[in-house]
Amino acid sequence: MTVVQTAPAVRRDGVVRAAEIGELTLESGFRLPDVRLAYETWGELAPDGSNAVLVEHALTGDSHAARGTAVGYGDTAPFDMDGRRAAADAGGWWDGLIGPGAAIDTNRWFVVCANILGGCHGSTGPASLAPDSAPWGSRFPRITVRDTVAAEARLADRLGIRRWRLVVGGSMGGARALEWAVCHPGRVEACAVIAANARVSAEQLAWGHAQALAIRQDPRFARGDYYSGAHPDEGLGLARRIAHITYRSAHELAARFGREAQPREDPAGTHPGTRGRYRVEGYLDHQAVKLAARFDANAYLSVNETLMSHDVARGRGSLRRALARTSCEWLVAAVDSDRLFPPEESAELAAALPGEHEVHTITSPSGHDGFLLETPQVGRLLRAVLPD
Amino acid sequence: MTVVQTAPAVRRDGVVRAAEIGELTLESGFRLPDVRLAYETWGELAPDGSNAVLVEHALTGDSHAARGTAVGYGDTAPFDMDGRRAAADAGGWWDGLIGPGAAIDTNRWFVVCANILGGCHGSTGPASLAPDSAPWGSRFPRITVRDTVAAEARLADRLGIRRWRLVVGGSMGGARALEWAVCHPGRVEACAVIAANARVSAEQLAWGHAQALAIRQDPRFARGDYYSGAHPDEGLGLARRIAHITYRSAHELAARFGREAQPREDPAGTHPGTRGRYRVEGYLDHQAVKLAARFDANAYLSVNETLMSHDVARGRGSLRRALARTSCEWLVAAVDSDRLFPPEESAELAAALPGEHEVHTITSPSGHDGFLLETPQVGRLLRAVLPD
Repeated sequence: MTVVQTAPAVRRDGVVRAAEIGELTLESGFRLPDVRLAYETWGELAPDGSNAVLVEHALTGDSHAARGTAVGYGDTAPFDMDGRRAAADAGGWWDGLIGPGAAIDTNRWFVVCANILGGCHGSTGPASLAPDSAPWGSRFPRITVRDTVAAEARLADRLGIRRWRLVVGGSMGGARALEWAVCHPGRVEACAVIAANARVSAEQLAWGHAQALAIRQDPRFARGDYYSGAHPDEGLGLARRIAHITYRSAHELAARFGREAQPREDPAGTHPGTRGRYRVEGYLDHQAVKLAARFDANAYLSVNETLMSHDVARGRGSLRRALARTSCEWLVAAVDSDRLFPPEESAELAAALPGEHEVHTITSPSGHDGFLLETPQVGRLLRAVLPD
Repeated sequence: MTVVQTAPAVRRDGVVRAAEIGELTLESGFRLPDVRLAYETWGELAPDGSNAVLVEHALTGDSHAARGTAVGYGDTAPFDMDGRRAAADAGGWWDGLIGPGAAIDTNRWFVVCANILGGCHGSTGPASLAPDSAPWGSRFPRITVRDTVAAEARLADRLGIRRWRLVVGGSMGGARALEWAVCHPGRVEACAVIAANARVSAEQLAWGHAQALAIRQDPRFARGDYYSGAHPDEGLGLARRIAHITYRSAHELAARFGREAQPREDPAGTHPGTRGRYRVEGYLDHQAVKLAARFDANAYLSVNETLMSHDVARGRGSLRRALARTSCEWLVAAVDSDRLFPPEESAELAAALPGEHEVHTITSPSGHDGFLLETPQVGRLLRAVLPD
């Protein structure tokens, strides 16, 4: 078990590195060998290890939560897991929240963001090679949120981080943060659960089911062993379209697109199969193509399954009892227009935590994705947890 | 152009009959030849034709809105369009609202319900034979809500109905009822639009797009010309699952299924592809199988497209201006938990109608499907429009 570049000679903010964390016995009992976690860091770990912040990404997110802060990386950056030059300078999904002087101030905090186990951005996932040197494909096991936390605890060990000042995430990242606080109460000082819940609802299971079928029914899926042929991008794209609708609000779609036609297309053709598109169809198609270009279908199935596994009470008695073991500060926040993780589910979580906790409201017209879009509001909430 | 059994010697309530209504020039300009509408009736048309009520079914509904009221049909019923014995005694989708003594009292009213043009229950649709004696398949044209009304106006002519005392429908049936009032203001005395809107929203277009792709991406779809081979039931089933989630409420799914496992199945398996199901997954699978057994995929695409076409203002200036030509009584009602046709869209419709109109609220935990489930409440509203 070796540590790859976990203590680089030069600080490389926002550049993908990897840690080999060995065999992991999953919740299901499956033993996953040779696990690797890819991750990025920003800032410097204090000698006493007291300034570490773990940022957890959402379903199809990745470790690039923020751009690299040092100058000159562009040309000299190392190659990332996929052999692409790591674009440290590229924007991250929480730019504005993480950086020098930002809410998560990288002049003060050492920020870590790891690609989820089961994904496709450098951490071990279905496209990784199994011990027989073929991709895992259909053989890749089911990964629970708790499994992802177990892997990240190993990463923390490798990085010399005994205790996180804060673990923070939105959406499935919030579920991951919550499980950290429950699985390792002694290692989490504060936990921020944004646009997430204590357990995934029947509704979310239903959407997860539909998305999984969209991929599995693609003939190119080949039961998951498609790596030697064409990939099931059509099915993946459909899964993304379904998901994306649930990530936004009906009001936003109405305001942005209404019933307008896609430019230079006419939805009023004589035949459904050949008519032009409505703009909202073009928008969803664009989201589908974008995701298929950066994501592997098996990895999508894996993270989808991980999200569906989320139930902090599972095997721990009641929700209240499961959360009784936690001992951290809490920030619970919900997006007012979120229909996938509605505010009442954040309230259910807050009510079940030990002590009294308010649910903070993020105001957004955009639905669930508000946790990514309304960074000034999220920043104000985080500054209260990470005071100067 | 012949009329088939439009004036049967014996009254046959709730039995499918058909009318040949000739060539129809569609909104798109496409000329659809030899159009047939299958329909059912209940009660007897008054000699002056003054007691006719048109009931419009929803997306995958059919003409069997209510069971037959006469005794003894079970064994002697004629065969229906598909060669099956017409099950007049089988329950209809609005049983309890239509029948002797019901809100739509068949002792008093002559009730008509027609299968939608483009569907698969006897009216001309994609599975019907084109003039070359092969199924229309991919050649079947796009049908708008207005096209369906044009076809039904021909049917009304054949039945000797100059004017409807009431046209009523829920969901897409409400859209069809609304277009009746706008297309033929002189032929509609009262119009009841339940759980529907004045125009389909961006959100509904988005769901329609996802559902269409679910079918089109099924390899058995064969671009719509699959009738000589296996049918794209997997794609149709996925479309139905997507739709069905939008028809219900998250609360109902949570209360009925939560995170429970399907009986004798275990969602906590080692691999996503072989794990047992959650109950809500089993429920959606059941809905998918049920629909695939009674519906044709091309017909689903057709009615889905028809719903997407719904915009009463299209080509008529503003919404208010489009509705200014109407001259009927109105009943506008919404289901409080409906997220597909939310109450605010019923309010938008009511506000744009000539005169002052209240939106009546149907209280239901079940979401959009409340218009089918909460028949006592719908009945009370309809009794006000059809007084004794």
